[in-house]
Amino acid sequence: MAYFQTRTTPGRHFLQIPGPSNVPDRVLRAMDNPTMDHRGPDFGVMGKMILDKVKKVFQTESHVVIYPASGTGAWEAALVNTLSPGDRVLMCETGWFASLWREMAEKLDIRPEFLKGDWRRGAEPARIEEYLRADKGHEIKAVCVVHNETSTGCTSRIAEVRAAIDAAGHPALLLVDTISGLASMDYRHDEWGVDVTVSGSQKGLMLPPGLSFNAVSAKALKAADQAKLPRSFWDWKPMIASNATGYFPYTPATNMLYALDTALDMLLEEGLENVFARHDRMAEATRRAVRAWGLEVQCQEPRHYSSVLTGVRLPEGHSANALRAAIVERFNMSLGNGLGQLNDRVFRIGHLGDISELQLMATLSGIEMGLRIAGVPHKPEGVRAAMEYLTGNA
Amino acid sequence: MAYFQTRTTPGRHFLQIPGPSNVPDRVLRAMDNPTMDHRGPDFGVMGKMILDKVKKVFQTESHVVIYPASGTGAWEAALVNTLSPGDRVLMCETGWFASLWREMAEKLDIRPEFLKGDWRRGAEPARIEEYLRADKGHEIKAVCVVHNETSTGCTSRIAEVRAAIDAAGHPALLLVDTISGLASMDYRHDEWGVDVTVSGSQKGLMLPPGLSFNAVSAKALKAADQAKLPRSFWDWKPMIASNATGYFPYTPATNMLYALDTALDMLLEEGLENVFARHDRMAEATRRAVRAWGLEVQCQEPRHYSSVLTGVRLPEGHSANALRAAIVERFNMSLGNGLGQLNDRVFRIGHLGDISELQLMATLSGIEMGLRIAGVPHKPEGVRAAMEYLTGNA
Amino acid sequence: MAYFQTRTTPGRHFLQIPGPSNVPDRVLRAMDNPTMDHRGPDFGVMGKMILDKVKKVFQTESHVVIYPASGTGAWEAALVNTLSPGDRVLMCETGWFASLWREMAEKLDIRPEFLKGDWRRGAEPARIEEYLRADKGHEIKAVCVVHNETSTGCTSRIAEVRAAIDAAGHPALLLVDTISGLASMDYRHDEWGVDVTVSGSQKGLMLPPGLSFNAVSAKALKAADQAKLPRSFWDWKPMIASNATGYFPYTPATNMLYALDTALDMLLEEGLENVFARHDRMAEATRRAVRAWGLEVQCQEPRHYSSVLTGVRLPEGHSANALRAAIVERFNMSLGNGLGQLNDRVFRIGHLGDISELQLMATLSGIEMGLRIAGVPHKPEGVRAAMEYLTGNA
Amino acid sequence: MAYFQTRTTPGRHFLQIPGPSNVPDRVLRAMDNPTMDHRGPDFGVMGKMILDKVKKVFQTESHVVIYPASGTGAWEAALVNTLSPGDRVLMCETGWFASLWREMAEKLDIRPEFLKGDWRRGAEPARIEEYLRADKGHEIKAVCVVHNETSTGCTSRIAEVRAAIDAAGHPALLLVDTISGLASMDYRHDEWGVDVTVSGSQKGLMLPPGLSFNAVSAKALKAADQAKLPRSFWDWKPMIASNATGYFPYTPATNMLYALDTALDMLLEEGLENVFARHDRMAEATRRAVRAWGLEVQCQEPRHYSSVLTGVRLPEGHSANALRAAIVERFNMSLGNGLGQLNDRVFRIGHLGDISELQLMATLSGIEMGLRIAGVPHKPEGVRAAMEYLTGNA
Repeated sequence: MAYFQTRTTPGRHFLQIPGPSNVPDRVLRAMDNPTMDHRGPDFGVMGKMILDKVKKVFQTESHVVIYPASGTGAWEAALVNTLSPGDRVLMCETGWFASLWREMAEKLDIRPEFLKGDWRRGAEPARIEEYLRADKGHEIKAVCVVHNETSTGCTSRIAEVRAAIDAAGHPALLLVDTISGLASMDYRHDEWGVDVTVSGSQKGLMLPPGLSFNAVSAKALKAADQAKLPRSFWDWKPMIASNATGYFPYTPATNMLYALDTALDMLLEEGLENVFARHDRMAEATRRAVRAWGLEVQCQEPRHYSSVLTGVRLPEGHSANALRAAIVERFNMSLGNGLGQLNDRVFRIGHLGDISELQLMATLSGIEMGLRIAGVPHKPEGVRAAMEYLTGNA
Repeated sequence: MAYFQTRTTPGRHFLQIPGPSNVPDRVLRAMDNPTMDHRGPDFGVMGKMILDKVKKVFQTESHVVIYPASGTGAWEAALVNTLSPGDRVLMCETGWFASLWREMAEKLDIRPEFLKGDWRRGAEPARIEEYLRADKGHEIKAVCVVHNETSTGCTSRIAEVRAAIDAAGHPALLLVDTISGLASMDYRHDEWGVDVTVSGSQKGLMLPPGLSFNAVSAKALKAADQAKLPRSFWDWKPMIASNATGYFPYTPATNMLYALDTALDMLLEEGLENVFARHDRMAEATRRAVRAWGLEVQCQEPRHYSSVLTGVRLPEGHSANALRAAIVERFNMSLGNGLGQLNDRVFRIGHLGDISELQLMATLSGIEMGLRIAGVPHKPEGVRAAMEYLTGNA
Repeated sequence: MAYFQTRTTPGRHFLQIPGPSNVPDRVLRAMDNPTMDHRGPDFGVMGKMILDKVKKVFQTESHVVIYPASGTGAWEAALVNTLSPGDRVLMCETGWFASLWREMAEKLDIRPEFLKGDWRRGAEPARIEEYLRADKGHEIKAVCVVHNETSTGCTSRIAEVRAAIDAAGHPALLLVDTISGLASMDYRHDEWGVDVTVSGSQKGLMLPPGLSFNAVSAKALKAADQAKLPRSFWDWKPMIASNATGYFPYTPATNMLYALDTALDMLLEEGLENVFARHDRMAEATRRAVRAWGLEVQCQEPRHYSSVLTGVRLPEGHSANALRAAIVERFNMSLGNGLGQLNDRVFRIGHLGDISELQLMATLSGIEMGLRIAGVPHKPEGVRAAMEYLTGNA
Repeated sequence: MAYFQTRTTPGRHFLQIPGPSNVPDRVLRAMDNPTMDHRGPDFGVMGKMILDKVKKVFQTESHVVIYPASGTGAWEAALVNTLSPGDRVLMCETGWFASLWREMAEKLDIRPEFLKGDWRRGAEPARIEEYLRADKGHEIKAVCVVHNETSTGCTSRIAEVRAAIDAAGHPALLLVDTISGLASMDYRHDEWGVDVTVSGSQKGLMLPPGLSFNAVSAKALKAADQAKLPRSFWDWKPMIASNATGYFPYTPATNMLYALDTALDMLLEEGLENVFARHDRMAEATRRAVRAWGLEVQCQEPRHYSSVLTGVRLPEGHSANALRAAIVERFNMSLGNGLGQLNDRVFRIGHLGDISELQLMATLSGIEMGLRIAGVPHKPEGVRAAMEYLTGNA
């Protein structure tokens, strides 16, 4: 018997983790169309439509490579296409995912150097600049930054990172992970001079997990010619060659592409500016609720606040995991757990993707009721504060 | 271009009218299975499964006739199968739908007599008893009562109506409309001695509109032998005959039956007792919110409160329609309008079917914010009152 | 457990009955969108889009009333809106469905007169004309004709019937059932001077059963003012009044309307001319297969051949039901049974709706193999004959 | 506008390539359920259900690793988990996919040695044994064989390959690609002593592309401890560790897992033996059709016939691509193209997955009609030959 035949919880599940986000019905219904021949004449037409639209979301005119794989794979792709065994790269410890990316680099025989961080702010351009200036021999081949750190709710200001690299006069590539930032917050691959942008399907793109992306600059493509890490599945070159006619060098995840096609339509119909403004609004309402509860936002630097998720710290002596367990059990809502050093100290509220003000209010109500049920000290004023903000009388 | 290709509102629509209710994904996915041969060998197997399960929801061991038609049709079916032109019937003015049923009776050449009501309570058994006692000649052929008046949020206590008819020693049939009550509130066709129960698919049964029902007592079946109103589509007899083997005398709404099959599973898996308790809980939370806003519940008799919907009166000089318009425009939530004499005075909150506490909180938050936006005087305490009730510290 | 969780037959079911027809995926996916508020602002927009498009398929500029009910209901609607108890009507015995319509008329207190037929051709205009000429007092209020007799595969030529009525100088209304003809064969409500056209969703419109239609001429609307049969659910007037703004007087079958919206798009995108030509082609290929098998087509009059279905007679002493049972058991394909006097003598092949040449070839192959398995004498040349026709070397 | 809103071809597409195969509706409807939290309590329950069932299809009690990636990735996974840069491996040139796997090995710094083949039969155990006997120093670390060569329709007999390795007394690992063979033909990971089995979702498993698999023997796991190729995304160890509780180390392709859950149910409900027998039957019917047309089956060794697909050679001077183009244009059916050296010489018929006898007959009819339309010399006897075989009078 299939798992879905066993569920009897009434009402909708609230998937308020910072991704996967809630997939809109319109996308689910696109995804379940019959699989088509990925070598047939129709496929190329669809492929070109999608590849064209997806560039708009990355704000690039360069190549966007689409992998039939989840986001972790696109991290690997960014590294193996541009680097050689033993290469030094500069990474910034913004949180758990930055740390995982670094671990991955080590497993792939790259030598990451890690700018330590406290997981409460984004990457610091000044320190990057300083570090690169010290690298007189230009041995550092790439700077790797996480745009939106899904484990903390802190963002890094990519345009400033670019400026820092330029100020140092350093030729390193700039590799950026915006797996959870893309299509929720402004992101400009070309304008910000990013060389490789890494992203995934299950966040702002409002798809299930199963697709991931590399946007690739001309400089990155040139670097690929020299890069010696072995690669085949992740290799950009055959991808880009096939994409020219709307096809893929090996079997793509056809039904996920149907979903992507429709999700891109939805984003472009709403307008990226509006999408970003909506996310900003959800995030500010959430932070006001958190403060009204008397709790602390994990991100300490307002310029680094994420519009995708909010990490919330629990008072000393209280368990974030117990809170989340109470909420999923009683209210059928999933919240993100604290990762790594934040385990049990922090929970994360996802407010991204296909979300409206009422879905946010359901989310905040569930948390406020959960705090009561779980016995976490708080003032029951968060929901009201969010409503005041949303109705403009804050 | 199809209508659904034109929508770009982000997030889910909140369909908080008192029906159609939100259809669960599991039901939508059952409904979209390929249509099958309604005369083939498989159909009879499915038909018998469904006809067997549906009886449990009506709490009857008698026949339940399923029409491939929306609920208004089942009203007509109840009348034309049991009555003859010129027959007198007693109806109770509980609200708009009771009034519409009466209009229908008149259009069908029946002579309804109407116990006047103020639309703020259910039918009154004592007045029914009195009326029937006065009908010495037993000319009144049927008593028609709306179990859950969808226009007001007042219920009629059917067991007490039955007792009133019996106390009067009157042989009239008891016809009950529980289009919006079934599968949300306790309803006992057999135990309460109902002769014809009328219901529909799009409320507690959590289906789209398009199916409707008559549960039929032995006494009603016997009455049908004498009833002279012309009938063909609505005729019970060929239905009951075909149903014996799981088939229907004319083409059934096959895909709606798939949906019904699954919805019945969901109700029986949750357990009817739990379904009713959940609805009671949603309703009480809602009423507490309404009172905390300083607004008035339309139903004035606590014993008659509906667990399906709550009618809310607006202060004099304020427009319920303007409020609803503001809410659907800004928050993408549909609320029920005031019907007939309640137009613009009352709005109705549906809290039925596949609904959870968080969906209710989203609903109440949307209303509280809507009251503010629309400039309706209120205290912003409703959401908090509901949360207090739901978390047990009321 | 829901019925659909119990099926394990590999591959697709071939639903080759003359309706319900195979519902296209695009329609199923439209139908399973979340139910919306049928009184909300969006609904009217959709309603008007649909009501506008549906007229094109009936080839009318008059009203098309859409019932949330299956096709049998629309038969009833045509009668109760135009006639009074005791009215005489002329009906034509083209087959089982014409006979059922006549039975319905009798149940509704109408007095049908029945032009006898042999179930092997359509209605005969000359006999209609003769009959009407004899009705000097113009007591006959309506002529009722089945355009496409689903039980036999014979069509009636409606333009000729209209001409016959006119030639007789008779004022009777012309009521036409094209439940199974619409959107598969050319049908012109306005040009052919039809007063009420009856149709249903589950045939050429490629929807599941659950919607039905009356296209209504101005003359029919005027007749409705005098018609005294009781009616409420089926009453045109409130429908037409509400439809003016895209709404319905009582709850419509919302999700079926989503499906209709999309099915109409598909028909108009293909082009009605192309739809009809495709059906003609399927029908001719089928008839050639039947003849090549050495079997007899039920319809004896080539001008009356249906492009929707083909009735096939079995040789004396062989059971059509046994053949169909063998085919559904072994090949998972449903064929239509012989109805009434044709029971067990005839089987019916549906080749309508969302069907392609390969689906037809699968159908014909299944029949040819079924004939062998069931031991029905035949020449195994039908599939080949159909392929020759389809590839133009017939 | 999304691609699927632009299609107007009537009827179903016939996807008769050798994968992706036609995805059953039951699977599509499982896949489009809302995405869930892959770290929540429910997920582990589902994960364990799936991981348990999938082993039955591989006929193994060892680990089956599921990648959120298409099949090409699982090829890479098999190599990078077991081998080190510069390792020699023995590969067998069974066709295009074997050649691609070899290319991949080279890109990954492995040194493949290639037993030449003529693309008309499977791998030859005797030659493998001979080759391994010559490798006295046991420098060859793995033998890589394609079980079902999707480019040719030739299978390799894996049990015999295992016996050959054992007869040579060689310790090489046995890596087998059964991407297109699994769940269509008998495959026994444990009994046949395979070390790594590579498979994908879009063939016999009846899913869209987007999942792939490695079944891993204890010996392969031990080899992984020594293997020095860099790996992170493909690394078995974290997968197996997380799988123990039903979870995954990074975001899985959740909705594809829903689909897998249901597809496994369907396979186990039908019974693997029955699934294999059905495929054998489809393949034999197809080959008889090919011969009756007077064409040649690409596979020359009957013991190596594939039950998944049949490669068909065209007469000299005729273009397989022109034939396929004519068929997809006219009949809306996709056939597989000839790959590599077989381009334009061969077309491939997929008869795998959710396929029935009538779907096969549609397929063969489309080809027979296509041969006529495209002017390819043939006898129009193929369809008849297939029907004779299927009805047992061959």
